[in-house]
Amino acid sequence: MPYISIETFEGKTAEQKKALIAEVTRAVASTLEVPVEAVSIVIKDIPRSNWGQGGKPCSELYPAE
Amino acid sequence: MPYISIETFEGKTAEQKKALIAEVTRAVASTLEVPVEAVSIVIKDIPRSNWGQGGKPCSELYPAE
Amino acid sequence: MPYISIETFEGKTAEQKKALIAEVTRAVASTLEVPVEAVSIVIKDIPRSNWGQGGKPCSELYPAE
Amino acid sequence: MPYISIETFEGKTAEQKKALIAEVTRAVASTLEVPVEAVSIVIKDIPRSNWGQGGKPCSELYPAE
Amino acid sequence: MPYISIETFEGKTAEQKKALIAEVTRAVASTLEVPVEAVSIVIKDIPRSNWGQGGKPCSELYPAE
Amino acid sequence: MPYISIETFEGKTAEQKKALIAEVTRAVASTLEVPVEAVSIVIKDIPRSNWGQGGKPCSELYPAE
Repeated sequence: MPYISIETFEGKTAEQKKALIAEVTRAVASTLEVPVEAVSIVIKDIPRSNWGQGGKPCSELYPAE
Repeated sequence: MPYISIETFEGKTAEQKKALIAEVTRAVASTLEVPVEAVSIVIKDIPRSNWGQGGKPCSELYPAE
Repeated sequence: MPYISIETFEGKTAEQKKALIAEVTRAVASTLEVPVEAVSIVIKDIPRSNWGQGGKPCSELYPAE
Repeated sequence: MPYISIETFEGKTAEQKKALIAEVTRAVASTLEVPVEAVSIVIKDIPRSNWGQGGKPCSELYPAE
Repeated sequence: MPYISIETFEGKTAEQKKALIAEVTRAVASTLEVPVEAVSIVIKDIPRSNWGQGGKPCSELYPAE
Repeated sequence: MPYISIETFEGKTAEQKKALIAEVTRAVASTLEVPVEAVSIVIKDIPRSNWGQGGKPCSELYPAE
């Protein structure tokens, strides 16, 4: 029943998201001792201009390569 | 004053969203005994590749028809 | 698969929460045409002093009766 | 360490987001007495058709100019 | 209509929360050019043991004084 | 910079939370290729009566042992 929300910079590939879902599910299921089937994960793709750190947008702090 | 966030697969029509807002508002207002005007709802459209269930992306589990 | 988060003032009874879960689930399932079993709801109890409207805490605007 | 999520109508310019990040960071850091560097902000752009107020979508209540 | 969620360590006084609500509302209203009345804020009090930074709980990294 | 929110039933021990933070941080850092230091996690403790699955509260579906 755990529900996990992951906010990260947009631009991840389908393969990266798939691995992220698989690995985080495994980590949650094993440490909370719940079946893998009970774990839900939602990834939120955030543009760098929408993320602020220390008062500045990450589009300036960490421009995408 | 209730605030409701609804995460669902992307691809809903404007009519579906309108009905969802109307019906959920009614359900919340009547069970919590607050005026309809006090209810805020935000719908988040989630791509199937960003939703994981049981360790797998829903783009594989439930591909869109 | 819809996931719904409901933020509301703390102090609801178990019966009110049960009715809220039942009615919102019904509203979401019928308007999005998903099975009732797929709907998850999480209620967040918010103290009035933690909710601000128009710049003022609701503990001042709407003190609990 | 405060984490702030801001949901607002989509359509803001990069300059508006930059000012929003700067000003909210300043307000949080000064009132909570934490260093500016500790404050994270994520802006979520919400389409008007996805935001319901009083049971109606904001695309009808407040159409964008 | 902006909705702001603020997650911060538990233990703030009512006065600090009131100032936080007032100042963040002002910052959001002025930078997004919306009336103060339209701004909603919800503060979430997070125990230090529930906040992880760099893989460690903040109850270890930053024990409350 | 990833920010992760984990909602789970209340009642976890400090040791379980510590392991959850450590393992999820590792999973996120390795699959997204970001440094461990960049990962923030917030655990939200949800009472079973506040979690609804299929229209029923989890306090009825899965009473705590």
